Amino acid sequence: MGIVVVGTVAFDTVETPFGKGENVLGGSATYFSTSASFFSDVSLVAVVGEDFPEEHVSFLKSREIDLQGLQRIPGKTFHWSGKYGYDLNEAQTLDTQLNVLLDFKPELPDAYRSTDVLFLANIDPELQLQVLDQVERPRLTACDSMNFWISSKPDALKEVMKRVDIVVINEGEARMLTGEANLVKAARQIISLGCKRLVVKRGEYGVLMFTAETVFAAPAWPLEEVFDPTGAGDTFAGGFMGYLANTGDLSEDGIRQALVFGSVMASFNVEDFSLNRMKRLTYPEIEARYRSFKGLTSFRDLGFN
Amino acid sequence: MGIVVVGTVAFDTVETPFGKGENVLGGSATYFSTSASFFSDVSLVAVVGEDFPEEHVSFLKSREIDLQGLQRIPGKTFHWSGKYGYDLNEAQTLDTQLNVLLDFKPELPDAYRSTDVLFLANIDPELQLQVLDQVERPRLTACDSMNFWISSKPDALKEVMKRVDIVVINEGEARMLTGEANLVKAARQIISLGCKRLVVKRGEYGVLMFTAETVFAAPAWPLEEVFDPTGAGDTFAGGFMGYLANTGDLSEDGIRQALVFGSVMASFNVEDFSLNRMKRLTYPEIEARYRSFKGLTSFRDLGFN
Repeated sequence: MGIVVVGTVAFDTVETPFGKGENVLGGSATYFSTSASFFSDVSLVAVVGEDFPEEHVSFLKSREIDLQGLQRIPGKTFHWSGKYGYDLNEAQTLDTQLNVLLDFKPELPDAYRSTDVLFLANIDPELQLQVLDQVERPRLTACDSMNFWISSKPDALKEVMKRVDIVVINEGEARMLTGEANLVKAARQIISLGCKRLVVKRGEYGVLMFTAETVFAAPAWPLEEVFDPTGAGDTFAGGFMGYLANTGDLSEDGIRQALVFGSVMASFNVEDFSLNRMKRLTYPEIEARYRSFKGLTSFRDLGFN
Repeated sequence: MGIVVVGTVAFDTVETPFGKGENVLGGSATYFSTSASFFSDVSLVAVVGEDFPEEHVSFLKSREIDLQGLQRIPGKTFHWSGKYGYDLNEAQTLDTQLNVLLDFKPELPDAYRSTDVLFLANIDPELQLQVLDQVERPRLTACDSMNFWISSKPDALKEVMKRVDIVVINEGEARMLTGEANLVKAARQIISLGCKRLVVKRGEYGVLMFTAETVFAAPAWPLEEVFDPTGAGDTFAGGFMGYLANTGDLSEDGIRQALVFGSVMASFNVEDFSLNRMKRLTYPEIEARYRSFKGLTSFRDLGFN
């Protein structure tokens, strides 16, 4: 199955205690599609300005990402600036220049409308709804969001969450959306909005995945060097959805396996600035780290009684 | 194998958003030994004052905990008061009345000196060293500590960590002890002090266990109701060491299994105030939750390539 992802392509200026990247390639759709491209065909819907360099377009093409849906319009590309402290858990946004994003009207090329898998990366939930209206009958849909939309457009966001199969958000956002400090209760509330499955990202603590009946916990890979957490969540989602699109296995076991591949991809991404680690990542490395995750989490069955 | 634990027996006054417990039974050795008693013989070394009621002594006896090492001296029992906010992650200490703890000189009864397993719960590291001097050749020793000793007696504490097999501390303490924000690097530093194994408690995020060559990650059980986190760490350590003492299996697999039993015990303890949940806990419940932990964390092998 192929994936369509709708989100942002951006320039990021990122400062961490380990260095600074200025005007580097970023954006939710960029991280997602690069990560997913290791597993599946990916088509990207986003907007850039006239300043977006051919070099980045070439990189995305080198990952065999379909760019028919990448609009280029007059103006400057979306630019995000942020900074991380030593704990690397939360970015402090220093500046946001929406630029061409202000005029973004996601338009799915005809060939994308029959996609099997759709991922709505973090953008205005009203745009996410417009995209949902343009697809025919995807087998699997998922969305991400952020605190800004939870506070400014909660109703549109809840409508998105009602219409997708899987919601992927972080822990703080799950609590903020529901006003519930206990994460299990917050998860129940979000699932009751209408999605079937909730994936809660907890940064260096890993991921919890809830359905009405099940819970799955996957740790993050304990890394000795984390250079830049930017894009970790989108890279996670790209690996998760990309692996699912590849196998087509939507059983609980199939989805858990895909989720661990998502965690594997995120663990690589944070090892270098921007998408630099993705640029030199190989599939054997991915499989080796998947096996290491098995080793990280394995313990004995009781085996009797 | 049997366990000797040295630590505190206390009265706690605890306030959480869900209620308040005044002068309830608490203390690191109390939580540890109660939890361990589900798996193994336990002998307790601690001090209480004249105000310590027979009711609590009876409870500990009902768990078949050996109380030869429980000193009763003139004065009042150690009393800790604390408060938790909605996130329940960190207690705010409101008051600490050391009372009889000021005069505590741990004296191991002769029968305890040949113990196979020794746990040094959170007390003055100088006292922990005195206890280490009193045991013969235990097969397994472990210690806990806290931020107060890290800042006030770092050298004595490092000496303890050099002499025990397993160090059990929380994430913030590991960072504080080493001045290292990255937990993997902090873990390497602590292991280089001389212990063989480090267990890092991360509250609702579970536990990481490091050796020089391995890492194991166990989640915490995702609970819908957490009433009182007091004693969770000691209850965890009690289940962990108790299970190890029972099986005597100090292989990596054996220690991982024991660690999950520790997590199981902690998950029960926080479901009610003080040791109330422990008082009505049954072994079949423990085994059932161990199996649920398996379900919570299981995912497929790659199975090919």
